[in-house]
Amino acid sequence: MTDMTDYSAQSTSLTLLGLGAMGTALAHAWLAAGHPLTVWNRTAARAEPLAARGASVAATAAEAVAANRLVVLCLLDDDSVGETLDGVDLTGKDVVNLTTGTPGQSRALAQRAADRGARLLDGGIMAVPPMIGVANSGGYVFYSGSRSLFDTHSRVLAVPTATRYVGEDPGHAALYDVALLSAMTGMFAGVSHAFALIRGEDIPPKDFAHLLAGWLTAMASSVYGMAGQLESGDYTTGVASNLAMQVAGSATLLRTAEEQGVSPELLSPYMALMERRVAEGHGDEGGAGIVDLLTRR
Amino acid sequence: MTDMTDYSAQSTSLTLLGLGAMGTALAHAWLAAGHPLTVWNRTAARAEPLAARGASVAATAAEAVAANRLVVLCLLDDDSVGETLDGVDLTGKDVVNLTTGTPGQSRALAQRAADRGARLLDGGIMAVPPMIGVANSGGYVFYSGSRSLFDTHSRVLAVPTATRYVGEDPGHAALYDVALLSAMTGMFAGVSHAFALIRGEDIPPKDFAHLLAGWLTAMASSVYGMAGQLESGDYTTGVASNLAMQVAGSATLLRTAEEQGVSPELLSPYMALMERRVAEGHGDEGGAGIVDLLTRR
Ligand SMILES: NC(=O)c1ccc[n+]([C@@H]2O[C@H](COP(=O)([O-])OP(=O)(O)OC[C@H]3O[C@@H](n4cnc5c(N)ncnc54)[C@H](OP(=O)(O)O)[C@@H]3O)[C@@H](O)[C@H]2O)c1
Ligand SMILES: NC(=O)c1ccc[n+]([C@@H]2O[C@H](COP(=O)([O-])OP(=O)(O)OC[C@H]3O[C@@H](n4cnc5c(N)ncnc54)[C@H](OP(=O)(O)O)[C@@H]3O)[C@@H](O)[C@H]2O)c1
Repeated sequence: MTDMTDYSAQSTSLTLLGLGAMGTALAHAWLAAGHPLTVWNRTAARAEPLAARGASVAATAAEAVAANRLVVLCLLDDDSVGETLDGVDLTGKDVVNLTTGTPGQSRALAQRAADRGARLLDGGIMAVPPMIGVANSGGYVFYSGSRSLFDTHSRVLAVPTATRYVGEDPGHAALYDVALLSAMTGMFAGVSHAFALIRGEDIPPKDFAHLLAGWLTAMASSVYGMAGQLESGDYTTGVASNLAMQVAGSATLLRTAEEQGVSPELLSPYMALMERRVAEGHGDEGGAGIVDLLTRR
Repeated sequence: MTDMTDYSAQSTSLTLLGLGAMGTALAHAWLAAGHPLTVWNRTAARAEPLAARGASVAATAAEAVAANRLVVLCLLDDDSVGETLDGVDLTGKDVVNLTTGTPGQSRALAQRAADRGARLLDGGIMAVPPMIGVANSGGYVFYSGSRSLFDTHSRVLAVPTATRYVGEDPGHAALYDVALLSAMTGMFAGVSHAFALIRGEDIPPKDFAHLLAGWLTAMASSVYGMAGQLESGDYTTGVASNLAMQVAGSATLLRTAEEQGVSPELLSPYMALMERRVAEGHGDEGGAGIVDLLTRR
């Protein structure tokens, strides 16, 4: 087995396992930047367009891993990573896992990699394929795990999109990734409810979208106040609109939903937690106490 | 009864009913800008600091209403508006209601005002008291209802904070207000879940808040894509990440919540709707179909 990587050259060679929508976008970005690339995909046909662009296509995952010290994984999920690496010699490899997973899965993978003589860097991709390879797309990848692995390869890793290293804990990239996606899920739920409310009224969704985007952008900065409360433990600091007032306001939100024929199911769980917090005597606080309710076992 | 308002003067005189946190902030802004102001509050003591700043204090709501053509209401809720205006002569009055309510309540109030010889403009305040009277605070008030009333008084109404007139339907200011607050509620739910996930990890909430604010700001612009889908009726257009992919991702979000000891109650209702939509054969769509599920009776 030969390590073909020349670390003095600008164009590090690397291996990529997984040529789905995201893997294919990554591959194109590395090829376009002149990095010698070896690829493998379970369904071989997906590698053909990349071969035409100059990628070396390996017949097996083991062969692909053997080709380079730097091995990037972009597979469906943790199970597919396990299957793909099963029986493959990882000795001396720098494994970068861009497959979405949980913090626990990433920590376990880092342990398995270490047991097999490899270093692991885990990544969480905060971008969709059309953003890959586009300068200033706003997308980026969270990385955590081996700092020295990140430092060694930071230039080649930064080719497809921006990078953010968030610490040695191999689970933290996944945790940050999932935390942001979870917050976005809540925002999408609220947005869906808002669009449902204006349905049937003479209000063009695009005009409304403009107001909604501006409002959500302005309100996004309230996370700083919440972080301050969580850090200090004093949930009453800097509270412009306390839970008691918000609970009173919930009645108007629910009544409006009823008037407009909209199910309240996406808002009511949060309202119930606010009510519970107020009932427990915390009406003068901001929203930080909801975090306590969510994590109380 | 005399109409003391001089419409040729820059400093329109006006009446304000309600001196709670918001009413008091409005009163200070109008006084600071030199507008002769008559105030009334159910609990008289709250008017005293304003009297010291030059406001005329009326003994009754009827007396306050009689003092000016332009009458602004900023009371707790629709019931308190009804009680306050009960038996008061509204003939020829320009009533501006800044009390938060539902679209239906605003429409009914406009009708009652018209029946009593008054014009109504309804407002929805998108600001907290500390933003009132502060230039470029980012706050504003949605107005809807009588366009001519808005045009007549737009300058005095713009003194406390910016204004956005959204149409003749007296219910629309309330509808926009509640729709934005509803979207914000969803965002806060997601944010609470995100902060809960990082609790117990060695991650400072303020560092995380910075990433969260940036991410939510970037994702807020996805409302334009959703509006486009809702306008065209084709929910598959411009979809970077479809419902089937998001449902697959939900498993990782839920498993991470479990690993981190966080209740999934704030995310699961939206996930359930995505699953239902996918089960109904719409896995290739974006999120617009969730709006259909919320409004389907
Ligand atoms: N697409 C996005 O917008 C996006 C955004 C952020 C993060 N990500 C993450 O990036 C990763 C890849 O996403 P994607 O969009 O490229 O997914 P995709 O288009 O569905 O591709 C999945 C890839 O995984 C492979 N695979 C699945 N099961 C396998 C197994 N048991 N053994 C070996 N290979 C297997 C597939 O091979 P076959 O071709 O043989 O099926 C394919 O290469 C995922 O973890 C995803 O969460 C994606
Ligand atoms: N504060 C905010 O951040 C904010 C933001 C946007 C919109 N708003 C809206 O602005 C309006 C006023 O809010 P606020 O913060 O000023 O509330 P507040 O501080 O609780 O004051 C409530 C006001 O309503 C009066 N009131 C209550 N019940 C009454 C009744 N039955 N008859 C006559 N007066 C009655 C109170 O009089 P007493 O002094 O006699 O109790 C007081 O003046 C509400 O609709 C609120 O939703 C507030």
